[in-house]
Amino acid sequence: MEIYDVVIVGAGPAGITAGIYAKRARLETVVIEKLGVGGQIVLSDSVENYPGFPEISGYDLMQKFEEQARAFDLEIEDGEVIAIRDEGEYKLVKTDDRDYKTRSVIIASGAKSSHLDVKGEEEFIGRGVSFCATCDGFFFRGKDILVVGGGNSAITEALFLSKIVNKVYVAHRRSELRAAKILQERAFADPKIEFVWNSVVEEITGKDAVEGVVLRDVVTEERSKLAVSGVFMYVGLVPNTEFIDAEKDGAGFILTDERLATSIPGVFAAGDCRTTQLRQVATAVGDGALAAVSAERYLG
Amino acid sequence: MEIYDVVIVGAGPAGITAGIYAKRARLETVVIEKLGVGGQIVLSDSVENYPGFPEISGYDLMQKFEEQARAFDLEIEDGEVIAIRDEGEYKLVKTDDRDYKTRSVIIASGAKSSHLDVKGEEEFIGRGVSFCATCDGFFFRGKDILVVGGGNSAITEALFLSKIVNKVYVAHRRSELRAAKILQERAFADPKIEFVWNSVVEEITGKDAVEGVVLRDVVTEERSKLAVSGVFMYVGLVPNTEFIDAEKDGAGFILTDERLATSIPGVFAAGDCRTTQLRQVATAVGDGALAAVSAERYLG
Repeated sequence: MEIYDVVIVGAGPAGITAGIYAKRARLETVVIEKLGVGGQIVLSDSVENYPGFPEISGYDLMQKFEEQARAFDLEIEDGEVIAIRDEGEYKLVKTDDRDYKTRSVIIASGAKSSHLDVKGEEEFIGRGVSFCATCDGFFFRGKDILVVGGGNSAITEALFLSKIVNKVYVAHRRSELRAAKILQERAFADPKIEFVWNSVVEEITGKDAVEGVVLRDVVTEERSKLAVSGVFMYVGLVPNTEFIDAEKDGAGFILTDERLATSIPGVFAAGDCRTTQLRQVATAVGDGALAAVSAERYLG
Repeated sequence: MEIYDVVIVGAGPAGITAGIYAKRARLETVVIEKLGVGGQIVLSDSVENYPGFPEISGYDLMQKFEEQARAFDLEIEDGEVIAIRDEGEYKLVKTDDRDYKTRSVIIASGAKSSHLDVKGEEEFIGRGVSFCATCDGFFFRGKDILVVGGGNSAITEALFLSKIVNKVYVAHRRSELRAAKILQERAFADPKIEFVWNSVVEEITGKDAVEGVVLRDVVTEERSKLAVSGVFMYVGLVPNTEFIDAEKDGAGFILTDERLATSIPGVFAAGDCRTTQLRQVATAVGDGALAAVSAERYLG
């Protein structure tokens, strides 16, 4: 079995950038991706803050990343990594259908949307409950929907949805948003967006599909019903890190040092999956570049 | 006098990215730049490893950064920062011709090429000694020149110069290069590039302009003369950080924590000017984004 210099887990902005740098360093490299190239950012309708592109969809941006990586002959294989074992002279990266031997690993496996864990949520996924406005927004044209959350993702997607649907409610558990001010201004100025402050979803209701939610006001403790056909969740991230035994923080994000080394020698982490101050395409590419250079230095 | 939320020192990749993020956070922001927008990267003929652009000149890339920042109404002013004073409720950023009051500062002042400090170097700057192949390469068409260094910059620029000049010598003090393998392969395959290993420049000679160099072999200690009309220096970086009293490493790079905070509360550092593992456009944009968000959190 071939021994790779580096196996990169995940083909989002961090993983693809690591791949570009690794190939330019002439490392024997493979990227393993379980869904599709691009990671979470392909779910974003519009990216305005990755330098170089005034406005581009997440999908188009990641197409450009992938083309650039392919030009350096980066191999990207389908597979879900289920375990990484340290075998001394090499590491074994196990996927659902094969094993890879490698001298180093870069984990760039990203994160996924948190679930609310309320009644009706799992039941109605695909029938009104969604984690991706870009994917599913179109099905709600002319209808009333609810966005849950108050960060950049929630507000960006509320603005996107307001162009499609009849009415966007945004329920946020606090009395102010965390989103960038420019996004807040746009949302407050949008006549189709209405905020429901200090409120959390207690239950998602319906028969065959979502018909409404039960909201609880966290200040007054009063409950109210809201009739909506769709609920879009943007309430945080859960890292995709179950398969690796490196040291992690309480939420499961991987701990790294200033070289992006994890607690396991030869294993590095980059992007959304690690404990970090900010999760953006801009920071992910910085991480990807550094992780690849650190892996190269480790191998050298 | 207006009090800014954030003054950004330097309009390279880190500073412009910080500006984009600061404006999107609706912070009162100004960028102060002493030369021209873009920083050191505008001196690069070709950038292949900034994700999103398979190949672009540093100048063109930074034009795109600037346009994007201007679309968010980012103010960029000419000026050289000479001191930053903490006045308690605000900081005073002093330039050669005015003062700025601000509640936070992001230092993204970059670095410049190291000098060799050998005889003839200062004397012949602009008359054969250059720190910018893109700027000056054209003047040496058909001639023989020397590139000094063995890192990414040295080899990238040697490859650029070989298309213009008659012959490129590359003197490197070690017996192997630090540059990315892909660059090494291209240089080794280029018939116009010849390597002079284990060698340092001891003197640059000439009458009105550069006519040659004296090289010393660091293994044999032998000295030899080489006739060249130009000497291009790529032997490392010196940070532009004289104006700030934050804690620095031995080489003058600013020390930062995981939020990019310096030892001075409310002062952050991003990009090449700080102690970091890697200095690339990709890492600079990550730094710029994080520094702006950290400044926003500090102000909030």
